Amino acid sequence: MGSAQAVLKYLILSRDVSDYLTVCYSATVELDFKFTSEGLIPAIVQQASAGDAPRGRVLMFAWMNREALRKSLETGLMHYWSRSRKKLWLKGETSGHTQKISRWFADCDRDVLLFEVEQAGGACHTGYLSCFFQEFDREAAPLPIREPKSFDEASVYKKP
Amino acid sequence: MGSAQAVLKYLILSRDVSDYLTVCYSATVELDFKFTSEGLIPAIVQQASAGDAPRGRVLMFAWMNREALRKSLETGLMHYWSRSRKKLWLKGETSGHTQKISRWFADCDRDVLLFEVEQAGGACHTGYLSCFFQEFDREAAPLPIREPKSFDEASVYKKP
Repeated sequence: MGSAQAVLKYLILSRDVSDYLTVCYSATVELDFKFTSEGLIPAIVQQASAGDAPRGRVLMFAWMNREALRKSLETGLMHYWSRSRKKLWLKGETSGHTQKISRWFADCDRDVLLFEVEQAGGACHTGYLSCFFQEFDREAAPLPIREPKSFDEASVYKKP
Repeated sequence: MGSAQAVLKYLILSRDVSDYLTVCYSATVELDFKFTSEGLIPAIVQQASAGDAPRGRVLMFAWMNREALRKSLETGLMHYWSRSRKKLWLKGETSGHTQKISRWFADCDRDVLLFEVEQAGGACHTGYLSCFFQEFDREAAPLPIREPKSFDEASVYKKP
């Protein structure tokens, strides 16, 4: 590894410098989207697909604040804002089931975002690939689930 | 047409009776989903697809209240709650671009809904099939749009 690369690696691994670089990035990237009065924007997350238009499975739905969106674009990995825990979270930080961004879109009003991602493992904490595994009938009664789980959630989300 | 069918057709077409039937339906269908403190739930709307799991294009995102969900399940056509106009709306009531429900799902927390629909015309008021036609790069700059419009929005959404 050349010395320039070594310095670069040090910079990337150094948390202080990483935070500094995030600040630089934040200052240069204009996020011209409509956030709610709480500073949030909804994000629909869909499995990456080939072709011009996204046609993958919808995996989950979550909220982002500006920092989550900036971190996601900067790192290429989906970050969200947890409204219950009131903190930024990297999807996969516990499970390893990260979401690598492939493409992303905003809707016509710029108040909803759509991300195409390469999902490691499964998106849902219940073990399914998608959080939308439960179909309902017209009487709003649940139908039998038609897919197996993607992973064993008990071993992935171990209690500390 | 038999007389029983004729009576049924009259009942269905009669607005008063239809409202009465809606009340009956509302009383019997349990909507065991998590609505926000404002009584709303987010709905992701995706083009209907074949196969066990939904893999269509995401068309739009909107909010529903209990009445919108009930009306949607009862009629098979997507209804939403307009937060800006503070009223229930049938998608396609102006444009004719209705959304016929094919399948529907709730997420693991039962606080987000996913509908698969057969979209007449296009879902977006700008003329595109999907509201998510605008891709962005990692610097949050818009990329060239890679699809033609589905319809001429000026002639579909005429000023009164």
